[in-house]
Amino acid sequence: MTDNIGYIIPIGGAEEKVRDAQILTRFVEVAGGDQANIAIIPTASRLKDTGDRYATIFQDLGVKEAFCLPYETRADCKRADWLDKLSKATAIFMTGGNQLRLSTLLGGTPVADMIRERNATDNLHVAGTSAGASIMAEHMIAYGDEGPTPRSDMVTLAPGLGLTHRAIIDQHFGQRNRIGRLMTSLAYNPRPIGIGLDEDTAAFIDHERKLTVVGSGAITIIDPGDLEFSSMDSARRHEAVCLINMRLHVLIEGCTYDMVTRLASPAPLPELS
Amino acid sequence: MTDNIGYIIPIGGAEEKVRDAQILTRFVEVAGGDQANIAIIPTASRLKDTGDRYATIFQDLGVKEAFCLPYETRADCKRADWLDKLSKATAIFMTGGNQLRLSTLLGGTPVADMIRERNATDNLHVAGTSAGASIMAEHMIAYGDEGPTPRSDMVTLAPGLGLTHRAIIDQHFGQRNRIGRLMTSLAYNPRPIGIGLDEDTAAFIDHERKLTVVGSGAITIIDPGDLEFSSMDSARRHEAVCLINMRLHVLIEGCTYDMVTRLASPAPLPELS
Repeated sequence: MTDNIGYIIPIGGAEEKVRDAQILTRFVEVAGGDQANIAIIPTASRLKDTGDRYATIFQDLGVKEAFCLPYETRADCKRADWLDKLSKATAIFMTGGNQLRLSTLLGGTPVADMIRERNATDNLHVAGTSAGASIMAEHMIAYGDEGPTPRSDMVTLAPGLGLTHRAIIDQHFGQRNRIGRLMTSLAYNPRPIGIGLDEDTAAFIDHERKLTVVGSGAITIIDPGDLEFSSMDSARRHEAVCLINMRLHVLIEGCTYDMVTRLASPAPLPELS
Repeated sequence: MTDNIGYIIPIGGAEEKVRDAQILTRFVEVAGGDQANIAIIPTASRLKDTGDRYATIFQDLGVKEAFCLPYETRADCKRADWLDKLSKATAIFMTGGNQLRLSTLLGGTPVADMIRERNATDNLHVAGTSAGASIMAEHMIAYGDEGPTPRSDMVTLAPGLGLTHRAIIDQHFGQRNRIGRLMTSLAYNPRPIGIGLDEDTAAFIDHERKLTVVGSGAITIIDPGDLEFSSMDSARRHEAVCLINMRLHVLIEGCTYDMVTRLASPAPLPELS
């Protein structure tokens, strides 16, 4: 029943693209290697060459096909020829930029519906970096303030693509001091977990919702499942929010996290040679 | 397959409780009439007698049983005796107050899971007024500013109970000048519709997600399904947001709205006698 669920692959931004492009290499493997047919959605970016740059990288990594779908208007999202190409892709890659560009343009259109539907039932793998990572979950961080302490009114949540309910995803996590806003986003309703992705670090989340860390940085997991108290309901604007009894994991390359059981595991020991 | 989905009944607050309590009367009918077993969750309110007051009203309307589950801590939400009572209820009623009290206390606990599960599969009907209405949907308006114009940073969204993805629900709608914040909440991602409930007005949403208006006020529906443009991604903080091509309905007693097809219908003509 879960066999046809595709991967979800949020990347924390600024992934290495040339020397040791392990995240993009692993993504290409998941997408089908030399059979991969990758649709790049550069919509979050305002730079004209962002999508073509990724197309060249994926072609250099040996995919069958990599092409851009440069959605610029909501009308674009109804184009039959582009929907047809999207329907044949084995994987999607969403670039960085502004996640509100993605959500305002794609939200509620056949493109968003097709991505959600094919990821859930047709083995479509969906990757995204930076803004492209933020958009993936049901609840998306639209923007927010920096700082380590959760504070009322520090973060703005909005509906995302809806590929998973189980997590709220933040990116450029260590680099931009975002643990406060991630905790704030969980303080409203401690139902999802928080996933904070450092730059050049990705979460490969499989069909059983088991996450594996790939890349040079860390992934911070905040699990509020046993939360005993949140003061979010009584906090004044900009006031620090009290949160009692969260679970926290910092995971590096090769570590795994089961998003269903909420258990983390270290990387397997290297095999003896 | 949809036969065991219970009603969702958001109420805009300040519903008439004594003289012509048509909303509460209709709710009791849906809940099973003289066989109804209603669990009242007064958690949103800080007033001690809020739950008991509703229990008396429902008993006067002839239910079999009406009782309070006064969750005050997250630990309360694991109490086996209360979960057992919840598992036998035919309907839930959530009072007004502060929706963040509900989401911070119930979110991610067995209580929220059971309400969601039993509403989706076991004919549990879920009603809520004011804060109790806001919490119902997947995306909840936590708080926001008054005013008719959508503006960046005007509203704070958070995860709610998750009984429906199809709508964002606001309440005390006409009385508190909330159309700006409802449009803002849709401007991030025009995927759900917006439902604005006036006071003393309820949306009775059945298992096929057909909504019927009951009460003395109006329900405003904002459907961004054909939205052509949202400026939310480029708006500066507090700046007005441009939204092109929304559909708007104002519905009164007896009108219906199909949340799947997104078509509104006027109240049926009275039968000739």
